[in-house]
Amino acid sequence: IKYYQLGDFELQSGEILPAAYIAYLTYGSPTNPCVLYPTWYSGTIVAGNEWLISTPEHPRRALDPERYFIVVPALFGNGESTSPSNTTGPKGGVNMPKTTFYDNVKAQHQLLTQGLGITDQIAVLGWSMGAGQAFQWASQYPDMVKLAVPFCGSARTSFHNWVFLEAVKGAILADTEGYCSGRYMEEKGKQPLVGLKTLGRVYAGWGFSQAFYREKGFEKYYGIEGIERVMVEFWEKWSTSKDANNMLHMLWTWQHGDISAQPLYAGKALKGIQGKVLIMPCDNDLYFPPEDSQIEKDYIGDNAELKVIKSIWGHWAGGPGDSKEDVEFLDDSI
Amino acid sequence: IKYYQLGDFELQSGEILPAAYIAYLTYGSPTNPCVLYPTWYSGTIVAGNEWLISTPEHPRRALDPERYFIVVPALFGNGESTSPSNTTGPKGGVNMPKTTFYDNVKAQHQLLTQGLGITDQIAVLGWSMGAGQAFQWASQYPDMVKLAVPFCGSARTSFHNWVFLEAVKGAILADTEGYCSGRYMEEKGKQPLVGLKTLGRVYAGWGFSQAFYREKGFEKYYGIEGIERVMVEFWEKWSTSKDANNMLHMLWTWQHGDISAQPLYAGKALKGIQGKVLIMPCDNDLYFPPEDSQIEKDYIGDNAELKVIKSIWGHWAGGPGDSKEDVEFLDDSI
Repeated sequence: IKYYQLGDFELQSGEILPAAYIAYLTYGSPTNPCVLYPTWYSGTIVAGNEWLISTPEHPRRALDPERYFIVVPALFGNGESTSPSNTTGPKGGVNMPKTTFYDNVKAQHQLLTQGLGITDQIAVLGWSMGAGQAFQWASQYPDMVKLAVPFCGSARTSFHNWVFLEAVKGAILADTEGYCSGRYMEEKGKQPLVGLKTLGRVYAGWGFSQAFYREKGFEKYYGIEGIERVMVEFWEKWSTSKDANNMLHMLWTWQHGDISAQPLYAGKALKGIQGKVLIMPCDNDLYFPPEDSQIEKDYIGDNAELKVIKSIWGHWAGGPGDSKEDVEFLDDSI
Repeated sequence: IKYYQLGDFELQSGEILPAAYIAYLTYGSPTNPCVLYPTWYSGTIVAGNEWLISTPEHPRRALDPERYFIVVPALFGNGESTSPSNTTGPKGGVNMPKTTFYDNVKAQHQLLTQGLGITDQIAVLGWSMGAGQAFQWASQYPDMVKLAVPFCGSARTSFHNWVFLEAVKGAILADTEGYCSGRYMEEKGKQPLVGLKTLGRVYAGWGFSQAFYREKGFEKYYGIEGIERVMVEFWEKWSTSKDANNMLHMLWTWQHGDISAQPLYAGKALKGIQGKVLIMPCDNDLYFPPEDSQIEKDYIGDNAELKVIKSIWGHWAGGPGDSKEDVEFLDDSI
């Protein structure tokens, strides 16, 4: 894991994020064409994004370090880049200034150009919030992005998606006793476990599709029997491994996702994209439905292509490598 | 509002619900054919189910009191029939024994046959948990139900639906401070408001479809502008008008909805239905998707018909009268 120091970093809001940094990983040689592959909601760069990256064990994945220089940067708030959980002082913890996709992409641009000396055009691809960053890159640095591949994500967070996230947020905030207005570490020395578990259960109905549960995907793919055990062994296990303020920080970024909310554009950001865009939603995704992707494709125009992943996995179709068929579909498409 | 006394009522679990009663309303003359029209999750019989009932102002609705004897019974736990909120003593409040659809329908059967002297066949129709009761009736008293019309509901609660309800339940339980293990009235003299508000926000993403939010149905139909105001003025307003233990009681009933879980059947309850069944799901319903209804129709066989409500309203398509076009579709179909 490497770190790029951003110094006192000015955010879109005007606030300063003091001594900010991005955590990142690279694969392959910097002499090859660069592929940027940012993280998703709660995703990490260590044991996080590798499901599309070729390895000796899985030599035929889309992103081959023999051919590309793959850079995986961590989102602000994911616990690896500057985050509530690793920042102390007056702007640490729950008081860390909010960051947008714009801020993340600006920081990543600095990492690539100033930190890694990349001057050629790049490809950006990502799942979910990673897709949000791919869209953001293509509109924020249109002449630098040759190809963007957002899968299971959007250029602007829809109302319905925002509403779904209210439920995720509410799960933590409802645990007033455990969350302590965000000062749980200072006051209790531990995470708000009730809230984090609830977050897992709230997410459970959204992450996988109705069809996934109907066909008992949890048994078939994870070997978990019984729906209550799926809650505990899959969803709560995931959510309780996270920091509550980090989850709320990234959630804020997601809720405010909107590539037109930047100086360059006034509601026409999709038209400003110059590179090619391959948009891949999953037909059963409950919070990034393919209808939204279709609308975004229509706005972008001829340089965009829509390719729907047909899968019962729902949002997890693009997800962290559990759905092997869908990963193959992605590999073949990219 | 009328009450039918059930006395000490034995539940499917073997537990006794002491001095139990059903609250109900009737419309029209008991000499006409009987239509039973049970309530939905959180629904009440006062200002609750009337959107399909003809009135002087709305004379052309499906259920005409001039032609039918309409009986609207309240679910156990809805606050009108025996409920945590209106029961004191050792089996009151959070300690009220859990009730199933089987129990509700057994009690309603007693009301109709012994209380109201109805011996002819009846029609049963209902939305959501009302649909669950319609299915339950058709299998529990197959020779008494001539026609069942379940809309936006199911005969057995699916895994995904169960998971969605975990989130609804979690909203209240996460508010450990306000909920006080269910003794909020005894210990604090007030409802767990944080939890109930969260419940409203959790429900918000499920009740209306993605398309409804995309097309700003909240502005168009309710005149509410801005998505945060929809949370407060629609969803929190609804959820904070309820009692937390009542909501959890009915939720348990819903999660355990399964018409095959009764002495009469072993996994084949749908085949035991003798009357006609008109199943009407909404194509955009996120927790009772039409695919599930199709499966149930196939099990029932020739006496079942599936008619999909095409609507952006999602679950609310069959819902409490807000979607006027969908109500007309229902009226015309019944």
